[in-house]
Amino acid sequence: MGALVSSGSVVQTLDRARCLVEPALQAAVDRLPAQMRTVAGYHFGWWDAAGAPIRAGAGKAIRPALVVLCAEAVGGAATAAVGAAVAVELVHNFSLLHDDIIDGDATRRHRAAAWTVYGTPAAILAGDSLLTQALRVLAASAPQPGPVVDRLCAALLELVAGESADVAFESRTDVGVDEYLEMAAGKTAALVACACELGALAGGGSPDAAERLRSFGHHLGLAFQMVDDLLGIWGDPQVTGKPVGADLRTRKSSLPVVAALTSETAAGRQFAALYARPEPLTDAQLHTAAQLVEEAGGRTGTEKQAHRQVALALSQLDDATFVPTAVRQLAELSHLVTDRDW
Amino acid sequence: MGALVSSGSVVQTLDRARCLVEPALQAAVDRLPAQMRTVAGYHFGWWDAAGAPIRAGAGKAIRPALVVLCAEAVGGAATAAVGAAVAVELVHNFSLLHDDIIDGDATRRHRAAAWTVYGTPAAILAGDSLLTQALRVLAASAPQPGPVVDRLCAALLELVAGESADVAFESRTDVGVDEYLEMAAGKTAALVACACELGALAGGGSPDAAERLRSFGHHLGLAFQMVDDLLGIWGDPQVTGKPVGADLRTRKSSLPVVAALTSETAAGRQFAALYARPEPLTDAQLHTAAQLVEEAGGRTGTEKQAHRQVALALSQLDDATFVPTAVRQLAELSHLVTDRDW
Repeated sequence: MGALVSSGSVVQTLDRARCLVEPALQAAVDRLPAQMRTVAGYHFGWWDAAGAPIRAGAGKAIRPALVVLCAEAVGGAATAAVGAAVAVELVHNFSLLHDDIIDGDATRRHRAAAWTVYGTPAAILAGDSLLTQALRVLAASAPQPGPVVDRLCAALLELVAGESADVAFESRTDVGVDEYLEMAAGKTAALVACACELGALAGGGSPDAAERLRSFGHHLGLAFQMVDDLLGIWGDPQVTGKPVGADLRTRKSSLPVVAALTSETAAGRQFAALYARPEPLTDAQLHTAAQLVEEAGGRTGTEKQAHRQVALALSQLDDATFVPTAVRQLAELSHLVTDRDW
Repeated sequence: MGALVSSGSVVQTLDRARCLVEPALQAAVDRLPAQMRTVAGYHFGWWDAAGAPIRAGAGKAIRPALVVLCAEAVGGAATAAVGAAVAVELVHNFSLLHDDIIDGDATRRHRAAAWTVYGTPAAILAGDSLLTQALRVLAASAPQPGPVVDRLCAALLELVAGESADVAFESRTDVGVDEYLEMAAGKTAALVACACELGALAGGGSPDAAERLRSFGHHLGLAFQMVDDLLGIWGDPQVTGKPVGADLRTRKSSLPVVAALTSETAAGRQFAALYARPEPLTDAQLHTAAQLVEEAGGRTGTEKQAHRQVALALSQLDDATFVPTAVRQLAELSHLVTDRDW
């Protein structure tokens, strides 16, 4: 957690957004039908499977912080963006609930995934209810609900298409970098971009400002996914909560893998041969696979690409009309995303 | 299909609504990401699993017809209600896609359910995309999107809660009539009520008119579910597309079953003993079970209750401000719902 400890002000930024948004988030979940509320509150880390209150490691709530900061960047009040922040966080968690079912992931944030505790039907329905509540909260929060509902729905369709592509990639070994970028743009960047755009709109920003901040979010979201990909192979299991080489185990077409497979290097070809084997990889093979991906340039290539995306994101903030304090905090948050080890 | 053949004008009503709504419905599905569109179009019966165009038995599109007729009942134009009708039909089909996964139902409208053809992940995501598109279409169609988005989201949460209760009932044999009614109010009546309310609002109806038509839809939806329950035990498999005694096989807590189990009759007790056995029921036992439910009064009780709900629905139409032609068509549609054998 080195990155977090060394960036005191980012922690403050995240804390401030959390304190502003979490009560409204909890109220939105409280208004769900009882069974959905139970599953959702467990998933958010507010209570355990027996219903006893806990304070489990919830998500870092980066998306709500982006909504709030983008509202402030265009000169709006943070409070004006709370509804949009809640909506974005609800959508994010809807997608986690469904994706864990789809990917068969039994662990989420170091705890048993909701579907393993409450069953697949309950987790599907809880996801449906979060998606619904997100749109309800957003529509109720905006003086002009039409455009913002449209924006969130568009992001949702991109998100679903990205997840679908990610699933389809699992049975393929010939995914290209362009296809990867399209998938990541949907699966991860669409909602981050939407978070920033909705924040800007809630803050009363101009269409031009909203578009710039949307673009900032798009590039930041791509960087976020790439760092996730790096951690999925080389992350510390103690910190990430995933087993060593998790993404290699499931033969995910993450960017380091795609880069290695398309590298036309000897290491890349060796890696391709290993990856093509039908049987599960042993721990020794996983170790070798990770080394081959690194030798083929998959690791440094992905790091370089992630930094490039952060640079593209930051360049969007270079706008004299933006409020400097908010811009600084957005920049700090961007660096946290790439420097994180979780 | 006796009821359909004998009600020429109802067929015309349904056809008129379908012709008005289906192009917009197809356009909404066409705008989905490619993979979602493939699954959705198969589910709607527009093409087969290989993508070849077909014209399979789609749904009867009763809900879109209700939206359109309720708009006309308050003096509005049918065309003003197309967006709301599309939204309601998309929500209905979102719930079918997810419910078939949740209930493990392998057949839908005499064809293989989407999840058996494309896999559970694709069917979950296709459902998510229909839910999203429903809200997007609705928001885009209304001059004041706020209230109508809120109404549809509220119905969605009720729907999800009803489905959740239905799933929970499967592991219980002590469901009471009140609990059944609450479940059916969510699972089926909420969306029918919402269809009528959204139609009234799209047609420019007063809050009072919208509330009356909403109540009409609520009672009609309850009747609809009760007829479904009757067909689930005594329906002709050739027509319903479900096996003989389907709901008894899966030990569903449908109204005839709940009524029999709470009847305090000898037949009811015999039925309870049979239903409590852990092993699957044989065909002979299913036959006996259906007879016992009938002897215990479960069949006539449900028929009576369904007719009572239709009467309550029709009483809401008794309003001098409503347009008589539309009221007559709504009444015909109501009778079709209870007289149907599909």
